[in-house]
Amino acid sequence: MNAVDLSVYLVTDRGLSGVRGVKETVLAAVRGGATVVQLRDPDATTRDLVVEARALVGLLRPHRVPLIVNDRVDVALAADADGVHVGQSDMDASDARALIGQDRILGLSITEEADLDRSDLTVVDYLGVGPVFATPTKADAAPPMGMAGLKRIATRTGLPIVAIGGLHAGNAADALAAGAQGVSVVSAICAAPDPEAATRELAEIVRAARAGR
Amino acid sequence: MNAVDLSVYLVTDRGLSGVRGVKETVLAAVRGGATVVQLRDPDATTRDLVVEARALVGLLRPHRVPLIVNDRVDVALAADADGVHVGQSDMDASDARALIGQDRILGLSITEEADLDRSDLTVVDYLGVGPVFATPTKADAAPPMGMAGLKRIATRTGLPIVAIGGLHAGNAADALAAGAQGVSVVSAICAAPDPEAATRELAEIVRAARAGR
Repeated sequence: MNAVDLSVYLVTDRGLSGVRGVKETVLAAVRGGATVVQLRDPDATTRDLVVEARALVGLLRPHRVPLIVNDRVDVALAADADGVHVGQSDMDASDARALIGQDRILGLSITEEADLDRSDLTVVDYLGVGPVFATPTKADAAPPMGMAGLKRIATRTGLPIVAIGGLHAGNAADALAAGAQGVSVVSAICAAPDPEAATRELAEIVRAARAGR
Repeated sequence: MNAVDLSVYLVTDRGLSGVRGVKETVLAAVRGGATVVQLRDPDATTRDLVVEARALVGLLRPHRVPLIVNDRVDVALAADADGVHVGQSDMDASDARALIGQDRILGLSITEEADLDRSDLTVVDYLGVGPVFATPTKADAAPPMGMAGLKRIATRTGLPIVAIGGLHAGNAADALAAGAQGVSVVSAICAAPDPEAATRELAEIVRAARAGR
């Protein structure tokens, strides 16, 4: 079991980062207190993904913020990233674990309570649970489960949970109250006018919510 | 250096295989004498690719026909495929070699003579060279190099070459005369009314061309 601070979990989005670019957005988020970054770019070529992942590893390692690669185990290994995140249309977590070894972080997205019965949950370090709310940043997302759905899942698993989907400063405390260790965001940081300030606000909300438990 | 018989190199295409399906097409091609099969399905999810690759490994291994996975090193490893084929928009061959080890087959597509100067050519087992002719089965293909381009490249490298792009029974012998060890085809087999007969015809042409050298 690899420990990862899920408090403020940034998922990158090339489109939403706009002219600022992914790297600058990630750096701003790290200055604001992001605790983990996931590289997600399903339309990029493998070549571009490897280049991007290596650049982000280089940016993040001095800050001790782990880089997790969405879906692509090969890219994570080629770039020596800190981990991989797989979803329901990616390879089984057990296959991913066999390829990345015991020392890299492995996350799995689950979209409904029934996913808790998957046999490969034993090999993951954390769960991404959602979408809590509807989100425009993932076209093929499952139906939203609401805070009630998040809470039902959190009470049934001992794995650390990061809440995913439609999270922002206005509902992050509720996600923590429902049992999440942190919030995963895309637009709340990437599309913010000031990503550093947006991240700092989220980080303070999460810290306060965890302290008040 | 891993030996691979490049004579009749089938690249799968889900769309062109139609109702017959990829597996049935591959089996027919193997009965007809295909010597190597590459799984290529850039639009499939990772989950579906792993399922497909495992199924093809299971089909092909009893026939001692290697399965090579296009681009996706992670899928090749998860399915224990025999090798990987990378193109110019995939990861460097040297990165792929580091991930797959010495004993799996590694192929690299090159699209122009200048690609022969790539430093990672030292780690590949064969080259895919093309497109020789224009092809409708790869949307982002480079400009065709013609038989003259294939010949120029073949005279400059000691690596085994499979000719790619617009190859069929009518021009396979020319490709062999230009220096290729075999022909890579998609539509000439997948879109043929009788894939087994189409493969047999190609295999006989290649065999005759190699015997006449």
